[in-house]
Amino acid sequence: MELIEALKWRYAAKKMNGQEVPQEKIDYILEAARLAPSSSGLQPYKIFVITNKELQEKIKTVGFDQSQIVDASHVLVFAAWDGYSLEKISAVFERTTEERGIPADAMDEYKNRLWGMYENLGQEWHANHAAKQAYISFGLAIAAAAEQKVDATPMEGFIPAEVDKLLGLNELGLRSVLVLPLGYRDESNDWLVNLKKVRTPKSEFITEIK
Amino acid sequence: MELIEALKWRYAAKKMNGQEVPQEKIDYILEAARLAPSSSGLQPYKIFVITNKELQEKIKTVGFDQSQIVDASHVLVFAAWDGYSLEKISAVFERTTEERGIPADAMDEYKNRLWGMYENLGQEWHANHAAKQAYISFGLAIAAAAEQKVDATPMEGFIPAEVDKLLGLNELGLRSVLVLPLGYRDESNDWLVNLKKVRTPKSEFITEIK
Repeated sequence: MELIEALKWRYAAKKMNGQEVPQEKIDYILEAARLAPSSSGLQPYKIFVITNKELQEKIKTVGFDQSQIVDASHVLVFAAWDGYSLEKISAVFERTTEERGIPADAMDEYKNRLWGMYENLGQEWHANHAAKQAYISFGLAIAAAAEQKVDATPMEGFIPAEVDKLLGLNELGLRSVLVLPLGYRDESNDWLVNLKKVRTPKSEFITEIK
Repeated sequence: MELIEALKWRYAAKKMNGQEVPQEKIDYILEAARLAPSSSGLQPYKIFVITNKELQEKIKTVGFDQSQIVDASHVLVFAAWDGYSLEKISAVFERTTEERGIPADAMDEYKNRLWGMYENLGQEWHANHAAKQAYISFGLAIAAAAEQKVDATPMEGFIPAEVDKLLGLNELGLRSVLVLPLGYRDESNDWLVNLKKVRTPKSEFITEIK
């Protein structure tokens, strides 16, 4: 399915039916998320894929009781680095030079310039910047789900500190930033399914400067 | 082209060749960006589409001299709201109820709860939250460009305050957050074009909790 068609088909399902999403579709969605671009290629986030109903129930409790968290087949939690460090950045550039078969020090100048810029911006700036990169990946996961005719409900509405506790994210240097239940719409019980998709009109959304 | 295939094809072109992108492809990319989901459907951002070479030169000057800003066919600037207000939010919900043909006050409870939450979070939180929504749209624009075999170079590397001045964004209650030159790769002069795309291995990127 063409991307635009898929984006028109999708909506934020408010009620899911519990049906399981085939593993190959989940893999496809996760691969799109993994291929997302990020600032300096750092990919400062990970994805937790949850199919444990007990854990889903607990996340729902700290997720404003949104039923999709439990009625989804899989729940993705996007968790971003809680800060940058020279060690973390170096590890990424090491892998990059290795996989590209270029000298290990080929990216040193770039790396040192980057860290020189980041170092003084502080951990909150870092965490926020890392979170923003996760939003790009989140967008691609949503697009991939729609292409596969899998419903996905983008969620910011949960208590991040509580989700962090449930997943033990602090110990991993991560913070939860986004939740994406994947499953199938429950057409007969979803109040949103038949309402028109509304977006800012093109004339307001776009300004051309020629 | 399937999304995954498109994402594998794409890369952040470092050198573009100046060739023009057909208007229908630009429209397609902008439509994908416009269809992006956002928190409460507010779409707190706009896109400026720049094809004015003089302006592109000026943006390049405050964009770390990245040549793609001038060699691109079109340069998109994603600009997010500099803050939320009850007025701005009300305008969106007004359009939504109108287009859905539901009573004008049908979303009042939701709206008031939302504003009750946002009001005390302060303008910097607002601006940052609005910027994050733009990243989702940015991701979809990148995906749409790749599907159309148009190169796109995601950019955070520019001085936002200077781009704001060049586009008169402050007066519009907007702040520049992302730049996306659209064009075609200059294969023979781009150092990145033949280097392997490197991403976090799946085993590190994904954690399954069953």
